[in-house]
Amino acid sequence: MKAEIITIGDEILIGQIVDTNSAWMAEQLNLAGVEVYQITSIHDQHEHILEALQNAETNVDLVLLTGGLGPTKDDITKKALCAFFNDRLVLHEPTLHHIRNLFKHRSIVINQLNHDQALVPETCTVLPNSQGTAPGMWFEQNNTLFVSLPGVPFEMKALMTEQVLPRLVTTGKTQAIFHKTVLTQGIPESMLAERLETWENALPPHIRLAYLPSPMAVRLRLSATGAKLDILKAETEQEIAKLRELIPDAIYGYDDDQMAGAIGRLLTEKGAMLAVAESCTGGYLSHLITSVPGASGWYTGSVTAYSNQVKMELLDVSEESLQKFGAVSEQVACEMAMGVKKALHAGYAVATTGIAGPTGGSEEKPVGTVWVAVAGPAKFLTQKFVFDNNRERNILRASQSALQLLRKLILQDQQAV
Amino acid sequence: MKAEIITIGDEILIGQIVDTNSAWMAEQLNLAGVEVYQITSIHDQHEHILEALQNAETNVDLVLLTGGLGPTKDDITKKALCAFFNDRLVLHEPTLHHIRNLFKHRSIVINQLNHDQALVPETCTVLPNSQGTAPGMWFEQNNTLFVSLPGVPFEMKALMTEQVLPRLVTTGKTQAIFHKTVLTQGIPESMLAERLETWENALPPHIRLAYLPSPMAVRLRLSATGAKLDILKAETEQEIAKLRELIPDAIYGYDDDQMAGAIGRLLTEKGAMLAVAESCTGGYLSHLITSVPGASGWYTGSVTAYSNQVKMELLDVSEESLQKFGAVSEQVACEMAMGVKKALHAGYAVATTGIAGPTGGSEEKPVGTVWVAVAGPAKFLTQKFVFDNNRERNILRASQSALQLLRKLILQDQQAV
Repeated sequence: MKAEIITIGDEILIGQIVDTNSAWMAEQLNLAGVEVYQITSIHDQHEHILEALQNAETNVDLVLLTGGLGPTKDDITKKALCAFFNDRLVLHEPTLHHIRNLFKHRSIVINQLNHDQALVPETCTVLPNSQGTAPGMWFEQNNTLFVSLPGVPFEMKALMTEQVLPRLVTTGKTQAIFHKTVLTQGIPESMLAERLETWENALPPHIRLAYLPSPMAVRLRLSATGAKLDILKAETEQEIAKLRELIPDAIYGYDDDQMAGAIGRLLTEKGAMLAVAESCTGGYLSHLITSVPGASGWYTGSVTAYSNQVKMELLDVSEESLQKFGAVSEQVACEMAMGVKKALHAGYAVATTGIAGPTGGSEEKPVGTVWVAVAGPAKFLTQKFVFDNNRERNILRASQSALQLLRKLILQDQQAV
Repeated sequence: MKAEIITIGDEILIGQIVDTNSAWMAEQLNLAGVEVYQITSIHDQHEHILEALQNAETNVDLVLLTGGLGPTKDDITKKALCAFFNDRLVLHEPTLHHIRNLFKHRSIVINQLNHDQALVPETCTVLPNSQGTAPGMWFEQNNTLFVSLPGVPFEMKALMTEQVLPRLVTTGKTQAIFHKTVLTQGIPESMLAERLETWENALPPHIRLAYLPSPMAVRLRLSATGAKLDILKAETEQEIAKLRELIPDAIYGYDDDQMAGAIGRLLTEKGAMLAVAESCTGGYLSHLITSVPGASGWYTGSVTAYSNQVKMELLDVSEESLQKFGAVSEQVACEMAMGVKKALHAGYAVATTGIAGPTGGSEEKPVGTVWVAVAGPAKFLTQKFVFDNNRERNILRASQSALQLLRKLILQDQQAV
């Protein structure tokens, strides 16, 4: 089954609100096995609504409209629906009763606008709105279903969950969809695409692959469509198992997993605590870690050492190293990691030092130069990065690279056992 | 001028991401005097892209496409554009040069996929992408403009700001617009509106005022429209000068200024350094501060003390206070601020301690309870907040509230002098 979502209202078209309704509906529809073919945002204008309905009818089996059903604006949508279906508005007594009850509860007398919300096109099936006054409306024409819902998010969500989705299942026209996103880090998108080419080309045609780039991570989304969800899930997991063999170390999680959360799980398994020393990342690395609920179970804390004095006094970095190699150096990164590991009583530590920019670079150490050091119970790793001259992105990338190197060390320690 | 925004890519249609790009573009276009007629999200499928382009051409004067321009094989926008314009892909040397330079800086050799990003339809005007590899493309056909942009938000925004909007002005179909946003803090919106009423009513009709609510500040956006940008700019600055006289202390910055940057300017004037001690904010407060370029001139660093041991050893919090009042208390917040001020050799310090959630709350101290303390050379301030049970939002609000309290203390110290 193919669907189009049409949102009616000027708020989205002037950029005043972000269209979160459509994203939520699209997710629910996909999970129910309905492919969302298009999302269209239009003005609350009679001709525009008619044009959108006509276009949608030729393309899809299900049209979902939201918005334009409040007491002041629902006139436009309902009149357009009447014109489209060659229908007329009639009073729906159960809805009027429901509206009266709602307002009695709030001790307000209903006015003409409230009363008119109980007017619905004669041919539609009325979908009761448990959360508000405007009902949903369900139409069928030329093998296409049309469903009109209010735009208030919690009313729309209640109608979708209680009325629309259960009714769709009974049509028997939906097919199942299964999505799983594989999170990878450490291999640039273009190189990853090369390494996975043979695997990708051998994917069955009903399993589609999409590369979703984000800074420092590449997400691979597999989408399988077919008759049975459990079979699709098994097939997708089978493909992901092959993927794990191709790029075992690059995969750090699935779907909404965070790198810091993946590290937390590894540390919890080992019963080890983590500490952080930051210079150029300025607290962001610690923030990524403490964004994980329950981080206090495996994280003791961090020192952001912006000044050299703090590096020396709190992290025991030697003055000699700072003078000889500079604050942005492999040596200082190592001493920071060792220092914070000891001072904060942790089994693992990670340290960053670099030039976030936009100023502070030199020919030898340009803006974007970052040293990362990670230290474990037995050994340590260091890595140098040269990013670009965007401060915000450098902080982000350095922090994520630091987590990546930390993960590498913990994995090496696991294999050594 | 009427526009349609077309976003290409499955992420929006499966509800994986919310379409924030279109909202941003719609806002910018509206401010530039372009009416957004429709926003359409479609699959990255050849036929679907062609159909959307054909529909748009009949309805609007300007079609903006985003997404579908990354280096991997699911990117078919350029081929669809060639089919639509009866065009062919040719190598654009300046883009190839730009790509090579970007990768040289990162010490990565470009592969065929990167190289192919420099292929563009022959008839288009190439719009240089200052933030990434994929260029923008500008076409004209039958009096309609078509602009294709990458979907990565910061690349799209840079191309819109640097290339698309300035070029639209030269078409003569849009009018010049100048925006400036005044950032205020400390006066609630309703009181601010009262204090500014006379000034607002005296604004010339071509300068519009909008109150933009945000969680921690009230932003006042002035939008001037007319023929000449430099005149609009001068007129707007004149009005803002009057505003400054009305609410001198409430204004902490303009446009994209951050509260932390405003604090940095105050500290630089005083020649004072800042240090931070964090518990519940976990590094985010330090991150907000170090996001400001040049923060090293007025910031020595921070300690994130997740464990009580770190609070005692690094911040000199007394074991007695931790036992008597608990880690989330006014007393411990004060000791953390005093401790970090001394240990990190700063004139000012700010500390946070609280329960970010989702677990860890009690009847007496529910999730969302946060104590903030700020200490200066002579005195200190404390404040208690009770936010809600969303970890991410609690971290954000606690960090921003801490900066506000810090600004208040510094301003009080200034007035005392």
